[in-house]
Amino acid sequence: MRGGATFLGGALGGTAVTLSGTAALGAPEHTPEHTPGRAPAADQAGRATVAFRGPRQPGVDTTPQGFATFLALDLAGGTDREALVRLMRIWTDDAERLMSGRPGLTDTEPELAAVPARLTVTVGYGSAVFTAAALAHRAPSWLRPLPSFGVDRLEENWSGGDLLLQVCADDPVTVSHAVRVLVRQARTFARPRWLQRGFRHSPGTVPPGTTWRNPMGQVDGTGNIDPTAEPHLVWHEDDGSGWLAGGTSVVVRRIAMDLDGWDEVDRTGRENTIGRRLSDGAPLTGSDEHDEPDLEATGPNGFGVIDAAAHVRRSRTDDPGQRFLRRPYGYDDGPGDSGLVFVTYQADVDRQFLPVQRRLDELDLLNEWTTPIGSAVFAVPPGAGPDEYLGQALLEG
Amino acid sequence: MRGGATFLGGALGGTAVTLSGTAALGAPEHTPEHTPGRAPAADQAGRATVAFRGPRQPGVDTTPQGFATFLALDLAGGTDREALVRLMRIWTDDAERLMSGRPGLTDTEPELAAVPARLTVTVGYGSAVFTAAALAHRAPSWLRPLPSFGVDRLEENWSGGDLLLQVCADDPVTVSHAVRVLVRQARTFARPRWLQRGFRHSPGTVPPGTTWRNPMGQVDGTGNIDPTAEPHLVWHEDDGSGWLAGGTSVVVRRIAMDLDGWDEVDRTGRENTIGRRLSDGAPLTGSDEHDEPDLEATGPNGFGVIDAAAHVRRSRTDDPGQRFLRRPYGYDDGPGDSGLVFVTYQADVDRQFLPVQRRLDELDLLNEWTTPIGSAVFAVPPGAGPDEYLGQALLEG
Repeated sequence: MRGGATFLGGALGGTAVTLSGTAALGAPEHTPEHTPGRAPAADQAGRATVAFRGPRQPGVDTTPQGFATFLALDLAGGTDREALVRLMRIWTDDAERLMSGRPGLTDTEPELAAVPARLTVTVGYGSAVFTAAALAHRAPSWLRPLPSFGVDRLEENWSGGDLLLQVCADDPVTVSHAVRVLVRQARTFARPRWLQRGFRHSPGTVPPGTTWRNPMGQVDGTGNIDPTAEPHLVWHEDDGSGWLAGGTSVVVRRIAMDLDGWDEVDRTGRENTIGRRLSDGAPLTGSDEHDEPDLEATGPNGFGVIDAAAHVRRSRTDDPGQRFLRRPYGYDDGPGDSGLVFVTYQADVDRQFLPVQRRLDELDLLNEWTTPIGSAVFAVPPGAGPDEYLGQALLEG
Repeated sequence: MRGGATFLGGALGGTAVTLSGTAALGAPEHTPEHTPGRAPAADQAGRATVAFRGPRQPGVDTTPQGFATFLALDLAGGTDREALVRLMRIWTDDAERLMSGRPGLTDTEPELAAVPARLTVTVGYGSAVFTAAALAHRAPSWLRPLPSFGVDRLEENWSGGDLLLQVCADDPVTVSHAVRVLVRQARTFARPRWLQRGFRHSPGTVPPGTTWRNPMGQVDGTGNIDPTAEPHLVWHEDDGSGWLAGGTSVVVRRIAMDLDGWDEVDRTGRENTIGRRLSDGAPLTGSDEHDEPDLEATGPNGFGVIDAAAHVRRSRTDDPGQRFLRRPYGYDDGPGDSGLVFVTYQADVDRQFLPVQRRLDELDLLNEWTTPIGSAVFAVPPGAGPDEYLGQALLEG
């Protein structure tokens, strides 16, 4: 992935970052160093905004912000297509307001909305949305729980859900406030089912372009795809039903990490598990983080330099279609309760995500220290154009 | 308080902030705007460090960082004075290393230590430390659970504890890593009892000097004391037993906020509850946040402009000794589970904190929406001088 959640790293793809307020300096992604002699605003990271309106929803190809909340909701009984339209109109309006640093329409703490900090709100649909709207025939074929894997120890309270709210920003106050506004607005339509909070780095704490390290200390995300160069891997193209063009899918899996067990493994064992160096993330066959791993290279003893079961080998394939965009966050809910909120986006879960997950389930040294305890899949409808609401192409199609 | 957790706000009192690494720009608290023509490092907020060694522990008068974890531990059976000395030597060494951006001594993820981000580690002692060390006669008289108040609904799992680790930084990855290192190092001596995580703003997201807003949206901390101007309110002076000179006490209370109930209150009702304007925190009798509230002012109907039961009135006193340093953080553990990790430092809990808490318990409009659900008190030993370990004056005195 393109670095930790630093402001100066800017945004990728369709979601432009701008600075709100009168002292805006222009689009910072093009000026990684400010104009000499002109001081950047001390609250620059707070004033940055991501555009809400557009053919695609924000928060997918947006450079990961420092903080994320993933909230699954279950629909209340009686929520039909008309009610869903009302909810989507409300969320569309509030997401647009909040992402620009303005209070929600009925915001009871409007002052807490003043720091947008690259806030993004992204909405996903579980299969129950299609059933409730009497549109089950228009649900994507891949929209169902993932098959169970041998490594899974799924817990009900981290799995499933009818709706997803993904709320990300570079300030945790902003995330907290936005989640509260959106949940309150939804209360007659849906109730929270589970909530997962993740973090990367605060803005301005690591150099732009630094690849994130996960709670096991590994450089995580080096081999990620570039959604600008290969948009077809992320964004749905017209599949005949039409409404999902510009949309995607999101898989949210909670991966518990056995950090105490990992402590028992020395650095050689850790590097062998992944196939990359701990110091800089370079493959064991290379010298730079971004060197391509040489899966054929053998050492003096004739064995592969990268272990046959190393994570970097098992997660790779010769099929360029079996790739997807990863956007994970770390979680730490106290001693013994840490891991990843592992989040991926792909045009087609079955074609892209499943084959890789099957391969890792079969064999991956990393499995000894990681356990999936939650799993959910959602369809991410396209973005809202001018005067549109989220999901309009589906709900009025 | 002196603003949210922005880097450029700098540090107060005895804990100097410096930048680590070769590109250090000097002490930023004296240069709120960088030298023109010289770009600040993009990871400036990550490289800033707070000094560990000194007559007082850091993390008390340090300008609040964006993220805090408060972890209470219970001593394992058989932990005696000798064991406590060993633990204090280990924590002293690791705290100094981590606060300077270096790995802990047996750090298994050394790369995660590279971003100090103004990390502070602060250690507190519950009364069990004194008992275990056979030094019960040297415990401060105020070191005991607070008396129970009518408003309290205390839960065992948020209360008490034999040891406190307070870990604060401007980056959540840094806090998470430091807590993990320190807990692992302590595992033969003490086990985690409760952990509370709080947040303010990320660095660079609000203007320097901005007073924090709590999860109810109130400007919170305007009338705080300045520990540089009135050090005797925070730092213990020699009380005869001697070892606590340069130390303080910390009260950690978990205050649940009924945000759904608060939603039902209009802005006039909210402002009346506190006695301050929501927009900018100015007292209802003034025009600027830092105006002194006029508790005598009456409105056209003859009643006080500031309600007789308003929080700002009830928390004040004519006794200048009944004041203390507040350093609260917000918490948000999901819908319906938000509030304050209310943290205060004072030289003497009984003389400074208790009278105020008693007054608020008797009458405070805010009590309708806030409920203390956790409470703990710790003695904070003085800082570690060169070649000293934390608590040395007590444990070897």
